Amino acid sequence: MSEEWELNKSSSVPLHQQIYDYMKRRIMNGEWPVGTRIPAQRELAAKFQVNRSTVVYALGELSADGLIDSKVGQGTVVANNTWSLLAAASPPDWNRYVKSGSYQPNIQMIQQINQAEMNSNMVRLGTGELSPALLPTDKMKEMFHGSLENKFTLGYSEPKGSLYLRERISRYLHTKGIQASPSSILIVSGGLQGLQLISLGLLHSGSMIFVENPTYLNSIHVFQSAGMELFGIPMDHEGLRTESIGRLKRQHHAALLYTIPSFHNPTGGLMSSQRRAELLTVCTQERLPVIEDDVYGDLWFDTPPPSPLKAQDRQGLVLYMGSMSKTLGPGLRIGWIVGPEPVIDRLSDIKMQTDYGSSSLSQHAVAEWLSSGLYEEHLARIRTELKYRRDYTIAILVQHYHEFAEWNMPQGGFYIWLHILRPISMRKLFERALKEGILLNPGNIYDRHDQQHLRLSYAYASLDQLENGLIRLAELIRQNLQ
Amino acid sequence: MSEEWELNKSSSVPLHQQIYDYMKRRIMNGEWPVGTRIPAQRELAAKFQVNRSTVVYALGELSADGLIDSKVGQGTVVANNTWSLLAAASPPDWNRYVKSGSYQPNIQMIQQINQAEMNSNMVRLGTGELSPALLPTDKMKEMFHGSLENKFTLGYSEPKGSLYLRERISRYLHTKGIQASPSSILIVSGGLQGLQLISLGLLHSGSMIFVENPTYLNSIHVFQSAGMELFGIPMDHEGLRTESIGRLKRQHHAALLYTIPSFHNPTGGLMSSQRRAELLTVCTQERLPVIEDDVYGDLWFDTPPPSPLKAQDRQGLVLYMGSMSKTLGPGLRIGWIVGPEPVIDRLSDIKMQTDYGSSSLSQHAVAEWLSSGLYEEHLARIRTELKYRRDYTIAILVQHYHEFAEWNMPQGGFYIWLHILRPISMRKLFERALKEGILLNPGNIYDRHDQQHLRLSYAYASLDQLENGLIRLAELIRQNLQ
Repeated sequence: MSEEWELNKSSSVPLHQQIYDYMKRRIMNGEWPVGTRIPAQRELAAKFQVNRSTVVYALGELSADGLIDSKVGQGTVVANNTWSLLAAASPPDWNRYVKSGSYQPNIQMIQQINQAEMNSNMVRLGTGELSPALLPTDKMKEMFHGSLENKFTLGYSEPKGSLYLRERISRYLHTKGIQASPSSILIVSGGLQGLQLISLGLLHSGSMIFVENPTYLNSIHVFQSAGMELFGIPMDHEGLRTESIGRLKRQHHAALLYTIPSFHNPTGGLMSSQRRAELLTVCTQERLPVIEDDVYGDLWFDTPPPSPLKAQDRQGLVLYMGSMSKTLGPGLRIGWIVGPEPVIDRLSDIKMQTDYGSSSLSQHAVAEWLSSGLYEEHLARIRTELKYRRDYTIAILVQHYHEFAEWNMPQGGFYIWLHILRPISMRKLFERALKEGILLNPGNIYDRHDQQHLRLSYAYASLDQLENGLIRLAELIRQNLQ
Repeated sequence: MSEEWELNKSSSVPLHQQIYDYMKRRIMNGEWPVGTRIPAQRELAAKFQVNRSTVVYALGELSADGLIDSKVGQGTVVANNTWSLLAAASPPDWNRYVKSGSYQPNIQMIQQINQAEMNSNMVRLGTGELSPALLPTDKMKEMFHGSLENKFTLGYSEPKGSLYLRERISRYLHTKGIQASPSSILIVSGGLQGLQLISLGLLHSGSMIFVENPTYLNSIHVFQSAGMELFGIPMDHEGLRTESIGRLKRQHHAALLYTIPSFHNPTGGLMSSQRRAELLTVCTQERLPVIEDDVYGDLWFDTPPPSPLKAQDRQGLVLYMGSMSKTLGPGLRIGWIVGPEPVIDRLSDIKMQTDYGSSSLSQHAVAEWLSSGLYEEHLARIRTELKYRRDYTIAILVQHYHEFAEWNMPQGGFYIWLHILRPISMRKLFERALKEGILLNPGNIYDRHDQQHLRLSYAYASLDQLENGLIRLAELIRQNLQ
């Protein structure tokens, strides 16, 4: 449950006593109210890195005190905290509250991944982030030291976000062929929040959203938690296939189409210029608005991707999303949505009701990076690094995976969509790899029915980790082929 | 609609031509898609600061080009952007989308206030923020220049927020008598987001929430947009009245009680120690969880407020919320929720699904302020400043308001709840003051039925603005008494 408390193994206080004290404190403080489920003995033993017998001893003492109680089928729960006797009333039934919210919990595998990512020794072969070594931490510090005279504020920014930042994003978008005034741009706390605002602000429960199959959207619950449905449309080597969109739109009354044309998550694919034109044409004809997620677009290797859909959109059909999370640092939590001004006005109003805007420190930092040219310099550096990492990874795959897998050769972004050619239990593979400290992103996160793919990312792990992790993973896959 | 474009009055291009070019560009770019409503002539004239005839001329040209069209009852809308002819299809009906979202728009007066706040000349007599002059911008710059060696990251933080920050908040809460481990603390992007997570994660549509009447919660739509209902409970000079809570709880099956015990928003009131004990007792008996909003608690003048409800909560009944928005800077967007660990786990999972965590720059900054002692020094300074401002404001009220109004003497926080003793049209007063550049927060924002109060804040406006604004406001009130 908690990640920060640790046993003091050099203390003279016995380990079981330390565990007893720790758990009793949690119970007496109300941090673990009556009714809270205590983790299983083996989980606790793993967490504290002690023998199971030590845990059993500590739990026995708590039980003897009447503080916890084991019930068949319910596991061990907090039964009493002595205060509850004084108050002559049990606490609120938090378990019921936790199950009441409209928001679905994260899918279990994602929760496991989130947990495992807190372990800094984990070899993360699928993580969709830049390696900490590629993030420009020192330069960021220099930047804060530098030219802050005029624009720095600790107050709230404008409803659509700092005007200074939106002006810089407007210029930056101009280099991609997108004409957007600052008032058609909304600053958001990352792409995920952008999607949430669209879900809350523009769609109603029951709306259908067309997506690529597989898609990043299946790994999050933004639309599903609001009662919306995703409908997967197949892809080929040029990207989303467009020929059936018209028919499907009329059949299913789709409200939106979501696409990642450049360096797709999870497949790494790149939509061709021709396909982009076809997609825009059919969506215009069908009056089907498009969310264009372009968070990887700056991360090309040899040539820039074809220009965004938004650059050709004269009708105001496309809501375009960009972000600093994949390039400058996810911790900044800064992204943007570009769209027709009445739509941006609506999303901005909801943003104000949701969190009163994004961090002014982060907004200032991004504006400075864009206006100083530091951002372009940084992009040039990480393009080179990522390309090197791609080649390094592909070389390992060629040597160790050719017998049982196929893959794409990404032209940018983070991802290789590894296709395992023979039947395998992905769940087992995931669990076994995790036990050995290797964290995977199985394909079923992005397509519920998928059992044959892994999303590999060459962006996060160190080169050593990539090499050792991928070689070990190849062995694990061979052992688990059915 | 847009806030950034300005006419160039020294240009040789005629003003009507500049307006024509600007609007045509917006239409041709798709920023104003076909169907977008163009603001009324007088709004445009005010926005561009030109004569109405100039606007009429520009609109006439756009109309002659066929780009806009005036229809009775609909006003003027974009009719065509020449691209729509080529595409032989009209754009998606964005107006329908904008009306589809489940989230309610902000109440109109709040939208007007948000808009007016972008005008930096506005005298803001009700704004619930520290004056920019009281925010420690220079010290923040120094801090970033200083000791950043180890803890600074541009990557994602842990699901509950940076552990380094949560440890510091745990120690800071200890000084208030609250025992909370870092794993029982969730970092949020300000108190408003904390409320949204509770709404999404713990409650279902139809839940009833008890609140003080009037309450801050009426000014936002977090719970109402999710289909929940607020039920106001009266207050007296000791705070929320507790005698009817038990009966009402059973009658209405309330799911939560929300309170601001210290320096209440909007009334400035302080719940007595005795009343806090009574409230905790009745809520324990009734198993009614409490949200304790303590964002103003550090802003006391002569003596600290009684200890928080959470400090006496041994059952895990209270969800406690704090924030840096009212003390260190709202632009940081950093707050926290403290509660039973299973509840915090659930809220943390939703936070990860909502925005992947708060800005790491902001989290780092807050941790440094807490651990260096700078935060305590800063608090000491703003307590003195706010007390001076309170006295200054009260002196003006005594001189100019005693004939027609009553008020409280706040012992901390930002607010005076001005009670106008004779009937008045608040809507008219609000509009007339706005015309003169004075922005007010009328009582009906906090209690829909209220027609007799203004929330005054002595925190935001400069001393000169407070003096001149309040004197002018007294005159306006006198003129509008019925």
